[in-house]
Amino acid sequence: MSAALENDLLLRALLREPTPRTPVWMMRQAGRYLPEYRATRARAGSFLALCTQPDYACEVTLQPLARYPLDAAILFSDILTIPHAMQLGLEFETGAGPTLARPVRSGRDIDALPTLDPERELRYVLDAVRLIRRELGGRVPLIGFAGSPWTVATYMVEGGSSRTFARSKALLYGAPADLHRLLERLTRATMDYLNAQILAGVQAVMLFDTWGGALAPRDYLDFSLAYMARIVDGLVREHDGRRVPAILFTKGGGQWLEPLVRAGADALGLDWTTDLGTARLAVRERVALQGNLDPSVLYAPPAAIRAQVARVLASYGPGHGHVFNLGHGIHPDVNPEHAGAMIAAVHELSPPYHA
Amino acid sequence: MSAALENDLLLRALLREPTPRTPVWMMRQAGRYLPEYRATRARAGSFLALCTQPDYACEVTLQPLARYPLDAAILFSDILTIPHAMQLGLEFETGAGPTLARPVRSGRDIDALPTLDPERELRYVLDAVRLIRRELGGRVPLIGFAGSPWTVATYMVEGGSSRTFARSKALLYGAPADLHRLLERLTRATMDYLNAQILAGVQAVMLFDTWGGALAPRDYLDFSLAYMARIVDGLVREHDGRRVPAILFTKGGGQWLEPLVRAGADALGLDWTTDLGTARLAVRERVALQGNLDPSVLYAPPAAIRAQVARVLASYGPGHGHVFNLGHGIHPDVNPEHAGAMIAAVHELSPPYHA
Repeated sequence: MSAALENDLLLRALLREPTPRTPVWMMRQAGRYLPEYRATRARAGSFLALCTQPDYACEVTLQPLARYPLDAAILFSDILTIPHAMQLGLEFETGAGPTLARPVRSGRDIDALPTLDPERELRYVLDAVRLIRRELGGRVPLIGFAGSPWTVATYMVEGGSSRTFARSKALLYGAPADLHRLLERLTRATMDYLNAQILAGVQAVMLFDTWGGALAPRDYLDFSLAYMARIVDGLVREHDGRRVPAILFTKGGGQWLEPLVRAGADALGLDWTTDLGTARLAVRERVALQGNLDPSVLYAPPAAIRAQVARVLASYGPGHGHVFNLGHGIHPDVNPEHAGAMIAAVHELSPPYHA
Repeated sequence: MSAALENDLLLRALLREPTPRTPVWMMRQAGRYLPEYRATRARAGSFLALCTQPDYACEVTLQPLARYPLDAAILFSDILTIPHAMQLGLEFETGAGPTLARPVRSGRDIDALPTLDPERELRYVLDAVRLIRRELGGRVPLIGFAGSPWTVATYMVEGGSSRTFARSKALLYGAPADLHRLLERLTRATMDYLNAQILAGVQAVMLFDTWGGALAPRDYLDFSLAYMARIVDGLVREHDGRRVPAILFTKGGGQWLEPLVRAGADALGLDWTTDLGTARLAVRERVALQGNLDPSVLYAPPAAIRAQVARVLASYGPGHGHVFNLGHGIHPDVNPEHAGAMIAAVHELSPPYHA
């Protein structure tokens, strides 16, 4: 498996090592904005089939790499694979968000959740990892990922997406011990899952805390960050002779950089509401930073995209430890050429910052 | 009109003057969570009829005051009255968000927007203000409001609500001069509108920047805050022998407290992702703070609500200059008794902080 990496810019940048330019990838780079993705999804019949059948997962993972000079592949999967494996009845209806037919609503529901063995219930993910690594042939590193316990818990409790988090917050404020029990279960499952991904071949891992930013500061620390820190702490950090960097991303987490740094990851993902330069000063060389172009910049014409890429690079400033990315997933209605313009601009404009 | 106010706690707290306890009101306190509101809306036939017919607007404005010991009334209206008056074809379909049949998409659309005279096109709002003041009879102050230019512009450009702000951000990044022209128009209209509300009798005003937090920091300053600051600067600040306090509220604005303070308002509204104590240190007695209980706390049982109210009061700490509120509008599916529990807890628990 371990042919040397042709392009290890991402791994080096995540560890704040020197690179000749800023590496770039995009959250949801394998996704609906690509016509080739939509074609594969049509063949597969459903989003879940794409996730659960390694051939499809591999195919869509590699699609953006065929189109753009990206510095990483990210496993095509979903943050809800764990509740899916826990038999909660996950479905993705086209156009709507995910739904879980058997949501977790009581202490009894929580205690009844099965313990997972990733090589059994989530084998399809690990098979996809192994297949993608083979197909990548060492061109770029492969990133694995999972949702944060709090984020995944909200879907499990609500039975799907939510704007107000009515049930999960009723639990948080009304029965916090129950929520903590659920988060414990998810923490253990997520740690095992990410470690299995690492052993199967992913070369960096990222925790997506999409909904941590919906919490009050103290609740964020207690109900989201504390569990992410435990996961980071339990990760296999060295594999196949190389450090496996870990990235934490809390959308809307810009007010909590200091505790985020202390959670022990190698890098923090930032959304576009935080200035990279300000954040860089705040984290004081303790972590790399990943981000943070507003994904809606890609609705503008290529010349404007280039100007905004320049602005993000300038905000981080000279030196290493920056991975260029969007501040959140690429929107499904973006013109793929606009994504290309962004990536080209990073290639072109970033080398002077690494001189 | 100017009978002395029986309860001027709100006005005093907004000006950081001593009060015997922390005043409390709720964003969207006149709203769908109240059965009496739903009954009036059913009689009125539509949301827009409630807004545009002063008798209805007055009736629903007063409903929460009949139920709870609140320290302020807030005019029942909507942030889209200005685009409505500009003839953009506003409609509110039940269950969906607002839509504008004639969105603003080009420089030409922007230049074609009519100039408003509030006493003509928005007379129904001012009549409602005059009627509410009469009906209130000086019990508590009446708050007037408007949307921020950026927030209102997003609806005008998108033709309704948005998650990605695709068109407004395409304009922002691709044709910023056009967006600035639109924001100029809205700034002038909003200033005139708020001043007309003040002359008609509102005793404090609030600017709701619901979508400022969706912007990158520099864009927030240039496209949202700069225009709010101009509005604040142009407000009538003294009326009927009394200071008319101005409140700025940018949802998700917790990272931008320093520029927010400098915009010149008397108070800042904060959502629940910012710690009040941290914010209080940052604003250094220059403004009062309003907020910031997570509105989803009201999904929890009354005892838990009381504990969370205690936490918010403690986070602000001893001293004046705090107005208790939710961190965003009350959710429509909240039990009205839970709102009552929150308000009672503020009455009960806040006096020691003012000793």
